[in-house]
Amino acid sequence: MEDTKLKTDVLVIGSSAAGLVSALTGKRVYPERKFTVVTRFPKTLIPCGIPYIFGSVGSSDKDILPSEKMFETNNVDMLVDEAESIQLKEKTVRFQSGKVIGYEKLVIGTGSLPIQPQWLKGAGLENVFNVPKNKVYLDEMHEKLKGANKIVTIGAGFIGVEISDELRKAGKDVTLVEKLPRILGLAFDGDISERAEELLKNRGVKILTGASVAEISGNGKVDGVVLENGERIEADAVILSMGYKPNSELAAGAGLPVSDRGFIKVDDYMRTTDPDVFAVGDCAEKRDFITRKPSPVMLASTACAEARIAGMNLFKLSAIKTFIGTISIFSTAIGTTGFGVAGITETQAEAENFDFVTGTFEGIDRHPGALEDTHKQFVKLVVGRESGVILGGEVYGGLSAGELTNTLGIIVQNRMTLNSLLTAQFGTHPLLTASPAGYPLVKAAESAAGKIMFK
Amino acid sequence: MEDTKLKTDVLVIGSSAAGLVSALTGKRVYPERKFTVVTRFPKTLIPCGIPYIFGSVGSSDKDILPSEKMFETNNVDMLVDEAESIQLKEKTVRFQSGKVIGYEKLVIGTGSLPIQPQWLKGAGLENVFNVPKNKVYLDEMHEKLKGANKIVTIGAGFIGVEISDELRKAGKDVTLVEKLPRILGLAFDGDISERAEELLKNRGVKILTGASVAEISGNGKVDGVVLENGERIEADAVILSMGYKPNSELAAGAGLPVSDRGFIKVDDYMRTTDPDVFAVGDCAEKRDFITRKPSPVMLASTACAEARIAGMNLFKLSAIKTFIGTISIFSTAIGTTGFGVAGITETQAEAENFDFVTGTFEGIDRHPGALEDTHKQFVKLVVGRESGVILGGEVYGGLSAGELTNTLGIIVQNRMTLNSLLTAQFGTHPLLTASPAGYPLVKAAESAAGKIMFK
Repeated sequence: MEDTKLKTDVLVIGSSAAGLVSALTGKRVYPERKFTVVTRFPKTLIPCGIPYIFGSVGSSDKDILPSEKMFETNNVDMLVDEAESIQLKEKTVRFQSGKVIGYEKLVIGTGSLPIQPQWLKGAGLENVFNVPKNKVYLDEMHEKLKGANKIVTIGAGFIGVEISDELRKAGKDVTLVEKLPRILGLAFDGDISERAEELLKNRGVKILTGASVAEISGNGKVDGVVLENGERIEADAVILSMGYKPNSELAAGAGLPVSDRGFIKVDDYMRTTDPDVFAVGDCAEKRDFITRKPSPVMLASTACAEARIAGMNLFKLSAIKTFIGTISIFSTAIGTTGFGVAGITETQAEAENFDFVTGTFEGIDRHPGALEDTHKQFVKLVVGRESGVILGGEVYGGLSAGELTNTLGIIVQNRMTLNSLLTAQFGTHPLLTASPAGYPLVKAAESAAGKIMFK
Repeated sequence: MEDTKLKTDVLVIGSSAAGLVSALTGKRVYPERKFTVVTRFPKTLIPCGIPYIFGSVGSSDKDILPSEKMFETNNVDMLVDEAESIQLKEKTVRFQSGKVIGYEKLVIGTGSLPIQPQWLKGAGLENVFNVPKNKVYLDEMHEKLKGANKIVTIGAGFIGVEISDELRKAGKDVTLVEKLPRILGLAFDGDISERAEELLKNRGVKILTGASVAEISGNGKVDGVVLENGERIEADAVILSMGYKPNSELAAGAGLPVSDRGFIKVDDYMRTTDPDVFAVGDCAEKRDFITRKPSPVMLASTACAEARIAGMNLFKLSAIKTFIGTISIFSTAIGTTGFGVAGITETQAEAENFDFVTGTFEGIDRHPGALEDTHKQFVKLVVGRESGVILGGEVYGGLSAGELTNTLGIIVQNRMTLNSLLTAQFGTHPLLTASPAGYPLVKAAESAAGKIMFK
């Protein structure tokens, strides 16, 4: 194929959350520049919606980021193609089609790929799936799962838990296998994750924790999962949800430095070592806001924050538009129960040797309790003992738990202290929140304050 | 009656949100001190729950603050009595029973009283009610309203709107009369209040805005409301919800300075001019966090913040535990739609001559839109043009709008700027929040950023 030479001001590779938002932000800030997004997938999935394709949403067609329309409306060009190589010196990218596009600034948003357990026997059998952000793959998987009754999910992180719950909701016999002692064990402390576990069990998902998989069995097609303790679980289909790894081969191939874990090295402006090349989202290295260590967290929401920062800093740096470090702000829901975390957990605080105290409070999410549909609400705060700074917290409650987690996230981002929480104002309303005298973030702060010198 | 002389370390007058929280906070911080709360109402109502007694909650018995139990658990004494006079020099309070209690520190939490429109003919007729925080009165009113079909509510602030909605829910024919052009017109800008108005109308409440009441008609018992335009509305009962005034007679009688509007003057530690006497809640003067002017806002949530600050500063001042000024953080709900405001509105910003821009975004509160029960979500930010500081904002959405309003409240309290919002991280989840690329606080910030010099 003959090369076609093209030129753009800003070339963005990838159109998921990171690519989309960096292109749209860049165009907002530099409207006179030409932006071109190249993507393998013209129909981009809303990443966090993927588990819900299998139940609540019902079809991947209903989980599409309206990226094409957004690009068109905002005058951003979009091409469907796959990048093969980056030539940093020439400032060009070569694509599978033979196109070569020259750029002034390049944004790499190549995302992540599901971890494929090469070491696991049977992982290649028919009806063994993973969960990539790939509509074609997921549609085929969805179709095949319709014919399966017994499904085993391996790995109880967010994706594993959510997809298990959704498949159970769709009437399947679902077993969730996790090698750690708890589901969602990396995200939450035990006092929260045990509630998630109980809830998921009550909804009919069978859960095996502390259970390592020895092999996936079958003859061509999967027929079961064998655990290391010898137990065998029958399975018509297996879903591997063992995490994701950064998709950084393209960047590494161009000579851009990549971390041990495969993340592209970036500075606080989201620039790689080449000042004209930015990397954002799952493929870019993250540093935790609290621990200041590299963070393996991959979130569409973090990707969007990084993408905004890259977009704003493309042609001129702004010292007040830097990335402050990754704050793990997660939330999930099982039925009408929400779970969330912002900042570090107690488990992480211990592991990292922080000098800290915790404060907890359990109340209800609306008031008075005589109202219908009130939900238990629990908050835990992790607080630096010497500084009083809020290092993180966890939330369990009704469907307002997601936004309550965001309040906590903003508290952590502002490095607010116990004192500022104890004197803070929160709005309350019977139908929407806990009571004014029982607002959980304040009550948990009081509980923590009792454990340190000052009260 | 002969005087009984008693002595306590901290005497708290009033056991609603302000009294309760100041006593419990004080006891937490100074456990060795003796705390005595004197209240007229041993069964304290949860104030913001009062409108819901008439519908969703069903009975005042289910809207009780468990204050008696909380006092007992925390070793705080409670007496039922009514304060008659304070003797500042002697440091004593004289009660109706004849008791005289000496204090070392006094906390006045006497709250507020409904405004009684003396100027309004017919306001004294039978079946004309107001909405005091008085269980006996409200129980009698509730009973009488059961026999009424046609009810007119005068005044469309939060209490008027909420009680009208609840009475309609209970099957009544309800007309809400408001002299301003919009319901909730003092709390929200028109673009939010018009949505509330439409919603309330769709739920069957008749609304007359821009309508002044000339008189309430009836012969002994009310039979109608006559407007200034001559229109007459039939009524079996009328509810006056024309606001509240601080209950500060006791303090004024003791010689403590009180503002023109009747609020007890306090400093940032919630002390009156007498350093041993604190005042908290609706009766205490407030200064707006943004405008720095006296604020007429009365909220249980603000009262709780003030009460915590008084409680912590009783016996020793802490310069980092001061009240920073009242941030109007309101929320309310009509059906499954939530409304909220934090900080100042556009209308207020204009009236006060702030140099500002606004930013708005409308999206949905969960994602993708194919999910059941998604709700339109709208956010407006008011931003200082020169500083980029977020001065306030409004929220319209589903039931998570209350906690989203609190996130906004924390943003305002931290004086966060557009730049910090544009680079901030928020957690998102399909079942709990807007999408990562469409998180409303960030999108509204982008919209505002487009209107000021820097982008």
